[in-house]
Amino acid sequence: MVRIALDAMGGDHGVSVVVPAACAYVASNPAVELILVGQEDVIKAAMPTGCKRIRIHHASEVVGMDELPSQALRRKKDSSMRVAIDLVKSGEADACVSAGNTGALMATARFVLKMLPHVDRPAIITALPNTKSHTWMLDLGANVDSSASHLYQFAVMGVEQVAALDGNTSPTVGLLNIGEEEIKGNEQVKKAHELLSGSDLNYVGYVEGDNIYDGSVDLVVADGFVGNVALKASEGVAKMISHYLKAGFKQSLFSKMAALLAMPILKSFGKRIDPRSYNGANLLGLNGIVIKSHGGADELSFGNAIKIADKAVHTDIPRRIEKKVEAHLLPGSEA
Amino acid sequence: MVRIALDAMGGDHGVSVVVPAACAYVASNPAVELILVGQEDVIKAAMPTGCKRIRIHHASEVVGMDELPSQALRRKKDSSMRVAIDLVKSGEADACVSAGNTGALMATARFVLKMLPHVDRPAIITALPNTKSHTWMLDLGANVDSSASHLYQFAVMGVEQVAALDGNTSPTVGLLNIGEEEIKGNEQVKKAHELLSGSDLNYVGYVEGDNIYDGSVDLVVADGFVGNVALKASEGVAKMISHYLKAGFKQSLFSKMAALLAMPILKSFGKRIDPRSYNGANLLGLNGIVIKSHGGADELSFGNAIKIADKAVHTDIPRRIEKKVEAHLLPGSEA
Repeated sequence: MVRIALDAMGGDHGVSVVVPAACAYVASNPAVELILVGQEDVIKAAMPTGCKRIRIHHASEVVGMDELPSQALRRKKDSSMRVAIDLVKSGEADACVSAGNTGALMATARFVLKMLPHVDRPAIITALPNTKSHTWMLDLGANVDSSASHLYQFAVMGVEQVAALDGNTSPTVGLLNIGEEEIKGNEQVKKAHELLSGSDLNYVGYVEGDNIYDGSVDLVVADGFVGNVALKASEGVAKMISHYLKAGFKQSLFSKMAALLAMPILKSFGKRIDPRSYNGANLLGLNGIVIKSHGGADELSFGNAIKIADKAVHTDIPRRIEKKVEAHLLPGSEA
Repeated sequence: MVRIALDAMGGDHGVSVVVPAACAYVASNPAVELILVGQEDVIKAAMPTGCKRIRIHHASEVVGMDELPSQALRRKKDSSMRVAIDLVKSGEADACVSAGNTGALMATARFVLKMLPHVDRPAIITALPNTKSHTWMLDLGANVDSSASHLYQFAVMGVEQVAALDGNTSPTVGLLNIGEEEIKGNEQVKKAHELLSGSDLNYVGYVEGDNIYDGSVDLVVADGFVGNVALKASEGVAKMISHYLKAGFKQSLFSKMAALLAMPILKSFGKRIDPRSYNGANLLGLNGIVIKSHGGADELSFGNAIKIADKAVHTDIPRRIEKKVEAHLLPGSEA
């Protein structure tokens, strides 16, 4: 039985999304037990009757979406987020999922669970749709000013994540760069390129922003500042396109009729690139499984984050990453 | 009469795009004279009869799309790109447009035209569509590792570009950042935030990647590495969406019929966010007007880059920027 702790109070919608998503997940996954962490009375009020294999673990406090990570860490020791992570630490849960404040989740998880041996920094990884299937990308915002050896380590951890979750044992790896400079990119990227070129990873070289979505590589490696901006810019473009599509189909009676006919196609297309199907980012490098859901996640979307946690438990990601990192230490790294 | 020199050999398509775009532009803009720079026989062969106010200026060499900027600069003194810029320097042209290699264009323009007084680095600026109208963004790849004072100067130059081209004298300015870190962003961005907060620019604070496309601000300022990745990632998402839309409408007889009805709507929507309507990036900070067209530009797209050059001449961008920069020197900058 896989046991996953859910931060029931986290995200923009709290229990109104987490509780129904949990009930739906256990209903279709008989080998999973979920622990709803948060204010007992609030959770109970949101709980439909007949949910099986779900129990409530009371936690009195809630971390706000804009709360400073250091304050959440110091002052809110009985928050739903903290207690969900504590359950992973104590072994009562195999993984946890939170839609709360990313900074607080990262800081708390790092403090409670610690990093794996030899891992310098955690990194956030997720899958994004591409024209063929999907592309994995990290780091999505855990780090800024990543050094060459950090980027190298992100690649090592990312490769293991792809191997574990997709069964693709030698995924192609690209390093995110720009094509405009004479000797491309900045110093860190150039040095990371050398490290990766000399490794046994299936490194294919530099990729540019558009290659995230064209299926050129299985895994894209970037500094967290760059990766986060790329991700958010992509979300922005997709929203803008959807805005103009909707506006176009509402313009006239004719276009409204066309919309009726086009709707099934647009819907199936939307499903294909629906960010909700890609919700659930793994915080790699921690000694435990922590999945970050998008703050604005709805029920379907949060369910996907639970699925990612479930898969991560089955494939024992942290142990696999520990071994992979140990086998890929750079000369000069501590033994 | 505005005189614009066009690098006729540049870009993926060379004369087959530049020459017809030039003929179409002069036909509808009687106050413009164009100079086609490149191999005379090649240009002549591509020239339709009856094109007025276009003359050919022979240049024997061509800069390759993958040529190293330093080599293009040293070895190809009679390239179409170099000669087009030389014409701006000598005053025979008021501006030039090239779809060639960005690195070579930047290096050559900087060498020939020099920077404006007090400008440390040039920056590439363009307009991008948003849900309301458009957002200007710089730098798109001229610089990596921009310091806080570089970012500040990009903002100053960008504001003047927006003022000149949109007549918006106090555009809102946002600094591109990520929301994940406790004290947001990296050191350079945090310092630039202080510099901008203390300036008389209409600075509204940090923005994230999705704000580029939602109309939150008129101008987004970023380091060139970050800006370039954001731009390319956006292109990639748009291409992927278009790929899936087309595939969806081709799936069955029903969907093909729906496509026929939906086509006018999709077309008008496409026009709205057509990257071709946004083609033409200004290389700000140079002592002269140089417009970079997308390498893959088609006729419509290249025509838009000529229009941007035309507008830049009319509004005398370099002189305006020179004054603006002088009025916004940071304490400690050279006098």
